[in-house]
Amino acid sequence: MVSDAELVLTTYDWVPAGPRGYVRDLRIRWALEEAGLPYRMASTPFHDRQPAHFAAQPFGQVPWLADGDVTIFESGAILLYLADRSPALMPADPQGRAQVLEWTIAALNSVEAVTQPCMVLCFAGDDGTGAGTKFLRSWRDKRLAHMETVLAGREWLAGSFSVADLLMADVLRAAERFDPTTNLSAYPACTAYVARATARPAFLKAQADQMAHFARADTARTA
Amino acid sequence: MVSDAELVLTTYDWVPAGPRGYVRDLRIRWALEEAGLPYRMASTPFHDRQPAHFAAQPFGQVPWLADGDVTIFESGAILLYLADRSPALMPADPQGRAQVLEWTIAALNSVEAVTQPCMVLCFAGDDGTGAGTKFLRSWRDKRLAHMETVLAGREWLAGSFSVADLLMADVLRAAERFDPTTNLSAYPACTAYVARATARPAFLKAQADQMAHFARADTARTA
Repeated sequence: MVSDAELVLTTYDWVPAGPRGYVRDLRIRWALEEAGLPYRMASTPFHDRQPAHFAAQPFGQVPWLADGDVTIFESGAILLYLADRSPALMPADPQGRAQVLEWTIAALNSVEAVTQPCMVLCFAGDDGTGAGTKFLRSWRDKRLAHMETVLAGREWLAGSFSVADLLMADVLRAAERFDPTTNLSAYPACTAYVARATARPAFLKAQADQMAHFARADTARTA
Repeated sequence: MVSDAELVLTTYDWVPAGPRGYVRDLRIRWALEEAGLPYRMASTPFHDRQPAHFAAQPFGQVPWLADGDVTIFESGAILLYLADRSPALMPADPQGRAQVLEWTIAALNSVEAVTQPCMVLCFAGDDGTGAGTKFLRSWRDKRLAHMETVLAGREWLAGSFSVADLLMADVLRAAERFDPTTNLSAYPACTAYVARATARPAFLKAQADQMAHFARADTARTA
């Protein structure tokens, strides 16, 4: 479904330095840049999250997208919502569409579902000795080994670059950035894939725009 | 897209007693029963997983669905693939479709992404004292509290019953079943929602069919 309504993407007004360049509105900015779809940004307070925030995003997170009367949250859902609008985000043939769908969900539910808890362990200052911690890290390494096999045999997950790739690449680069126990360099096809994806002009534009958005918030605070 | 091809859903030939009734082909059986779509089951070895298995499901898991020339893995992806076929699985209006999409992804990436690592901690025999374990369990409880607020105000997530509900209900009941540190009864709206969803005839049929599938494997082994 194509509409002419203005696309408005909401993210936090400010975040600490650590997650800048990784806040999940980046995934949507990236997709919109790949597709050449015009949009504007809006902000919601990072501190003191209000009922209007939870009405738009029930877990108090970001991003969400407004498209006329339709609003949608969850970065993975927004990517699939936008994918219908451009062959730059999803091929048109049935098998290609099915591949984008399955790999988008795999990035979220088979890879990030395993890398994210390992990132959280580090964030929580876990000492790494518990049975659960060891099991979760071993599970993550098995999943990365499966991704290595997949990516050793193809440039992009669904034939041509799609939302599944920008999502999977973002999941893998976040694991490398925020979890020092993830050794992505042990998986050369995964490492090359992340480098290939993040060299795209649309990623570089999206990342620079997010960094500038949060830098402006710093300037406003000190003004 | 509607096709007349036979739908073939593949699951394991056998699993241990523990996960029976919870193997993820159940989600797809449930959706197919809700929609009244005919299908047949196929099996892949649980032990000694072969290259053909990894070709269909790159992480060596189940299920996957064949629909003529199209095959698709990841239970969440299969649910969204099927949702286009029946108003019993997804409403037709744009906001309803967006809600099904966002809540399907939320079930996977905001709820199961947090409940599943906690299930894994129990499975691994974690003693519960590590900083990471405590953080993960606290995070899970915060997410359940958010879901409690959402479900206190509505019968189903997207206006009428949809694939988002069968997925969210399955995620919540698995957390209760496999993680004794999840106290779902502390969230009465979540508890009532799971009871409401799992009382549906389509769930009961899907669950009974999965139990019978694995019971037949036991019979074949001892014959």
